[in-house]
Amino acid sequence: MRTLAFAAALCLAVPAFADPLPSWSDGDSKTAIIDFVTSVTDPASDAYVTPADRIATFDNDGTLWAEQPVYFQLFYALDRLRERAAADPSILTSDALKAAAAGGMETLMAGGQEALIEVVDATHSGMSVEAFQADVRDWLATAQHPQTGMAYDDMLYQPMLELLSYLRDNDFQTWIVSGGGVHFIRAFAEEAYGIPPQQVMGSAFNTRYEVVDGKGVVIKEPGIAFVDDKAGKPIGIDSRIGKRPILVGGNSDGDFEMLEYGDSGDGPFLGLIVHHTDGTREFAYDRDSAVGKLERGLDEGPERGWLLIDMAGDWDQVWPSE
Amino acid sequence: MRTLAFAAALCLAVPAFADPLPSWSDGDSKTAIIDFVTSVTDPASDAYVTPADRIATFDNDGTLWAEQPVYFQLFYALDRLRERAAADPSILTSDALKAAAAGGMETLMAGGQEALIEVVDATHSGMSVEAFQADVRDWLATAQHPQTGMAYDDMLYQPMLELLSYLRDNDFQTWIVSGGGVHFIRAFAEEAYGIPPQQVMGSAFNTRYEVVDGKGVVIKEPGIAFVDDKAGKPIGIDSRIGKRPILVGGNSDGDFEMLEYGDSGDGPFLGLIVHHTDGTREFAYDRDSAVGKLERGLDEGPERGWLLIDMAGDWDQVWPSE
Repeated sequence: MRTLAFAAALCLAVPAFADPLPSWSDGDSKTAIIDFVTSVTDPASDAYVTPADRIATFDNDGTLWAEQPVYFQLFYALDRLRERAAADPSILTSDALKAAAAGGMETLMAGGQEALIEVVDATHSGMSVEAFQADVRDWLATAQHPQTGMAYDDMLYQPMLELLSYLRDNDFQTWIVSGGGVHFIRAFAEEAYGIPPQQVMGSAFNTRYEVVDGKGVVIKEPGIAFVDDKAGKPIGIDSRIGKRPILVGGNSDGDFEMLEYGDSGDGPFLGLIVHHTDGTREFAYDRDSAVGKLERGLDEGPERGWLLIDMAGDWDQVWPSE
Repeated sequence: MRTLAFAAALCLAVPAFADPLPSWSDGDSKTAIIDFVTSVTDPASDAYVTPADRIATFDNDGTLWAEQPVYFQLFYALDRLRERAAADPSILTSDALKAAAAGGMETLMAGGQEALIEVVDATHSGMSVEAFQADVRDWLATAQHPQTGMAYDDMLYQPMLELLSYLRDNDFQTWIVSGGGVHFIRAFAEEAYGIPPQQVMGSAFNTRYEVVDGKGVVIKEPGIAFVDDKAGKPIGIDSRIGKRPILVGGNSDGDFEMLEYGDSGDGPFLGLIVHHTDGTREFAYDRDSAVGKLERGLDEGPERGWLLIDMAGDWDQVWPSE
């Protein structure tokens, strides 16, 4: 009996002493996260939240994985455009497509939003969702980031992976709410983050349902169905989850309304903004960045009680492979 | 040790002998359901499906609760239109609204889809999602079905409640995929069916995000954002779940594409069609019904291997209160 009791005590004790966030440096940010999770999971606390209401939502680009020099989904689109055009130049049906295929990412970015949508439309439509996602996984298996040389899906933030696990260990549901494409993110989110497809929402192009050889399939179509950015994030959360998140993580002003919406609930709330302060290990950017611009969150976040995560100071490790 | 082993054996044995579907009469339908669940949950079976892929989707109106003489949401809309018009007749801004308020359900139904949308728009917009759902719950607490005199949320199908529980006990995720309004259904789905809001999808009107008195809220607006019926059901499932369901329950031709989509996956599939054959305890209707018309499913369902649930013969009990 003594042995059994000792073993039981040991089992109970281990989680309490193990550091759930080993890549986070000891300091205010880590303490604030652990204090929040401890209080909302303690039935004796005034801040206690039942497991069913422990909803945590996270932006993806710049929050869970990197987003510089441009969103990784655009590298996929451009790579595929060039490959397909090499095989069949007739797919380049507009000046914007021709320019992007010839000039590369700088030309594409200089073309503005219209050119971007054309390239994404051309590479993200005309196939089943399953075929598209298989292709994204093929691409991720070999593509390399132009500056780091790393695989894109190795450029996840280790501290955020630990945070996701820590939250799930405490009966949170972890969701992705991204301005990126929902089908694109679902192609790797389960393996990368442990987040199943039904907990990934994102921007979406149109789809249609069709019976092909007797099988019902959903086909990706051109044209935007939903933009999951700024006010679209709370609208998407209402539509998909139907509950306000009690923890929200973001990094840009595209996440401001999602943070504000979570913070407008009746109960406890923790807002996190990943501030890209580390130009050595990652990329340093905020107010003036074309991608992941952070201005309002920087000005108003702290006074609203949202935590600014200082990547340089708060994170002992950035990439899982370090 | 002997005592412990006996207790353990007893614990394991009880679920195997308890009837998980006591309101279903013994027969082919009940056997087919139990055989399916047993095979997909048995790791030694060729038909084994991992818990993460055990997705079950159900239509709501006519599948989980009744839908005659018209969808219950329309009674809500008409009740609220009349109450509000009594307090302020100026809200009746069109002939269709005036006619519906004066003439009642028959007049409303005779006005066709345009009149319906006008009445639903007028009663389902201009308030926050939270205020709308509180109002739906208030209505459900006192409203009575015109023919049975029962509360609408007592007109759930007991055999389907048992099926939902049985599936969840076997690590299925149970989802509602309804042509009805998503905010309307979420107002009662958790209490009625044990299905949380994030597993309820339905048709949706537009919404907007607004900051009111410093709080971010989602406001219901007029205008249809998504019709979750027919081909809209697989499109919605792809958008919201990202996996094909392995079990689909419906009752009308609005569910045909959802059944077909689930049945088009690579693994095992069970399709269920609730056939309303019981004019005594419930309502008898199929091919000729204005609400819940079932024709293609009746003709093609059996040859596709989908189970036609004969409400009169397969269900020993219809309502929970019997």
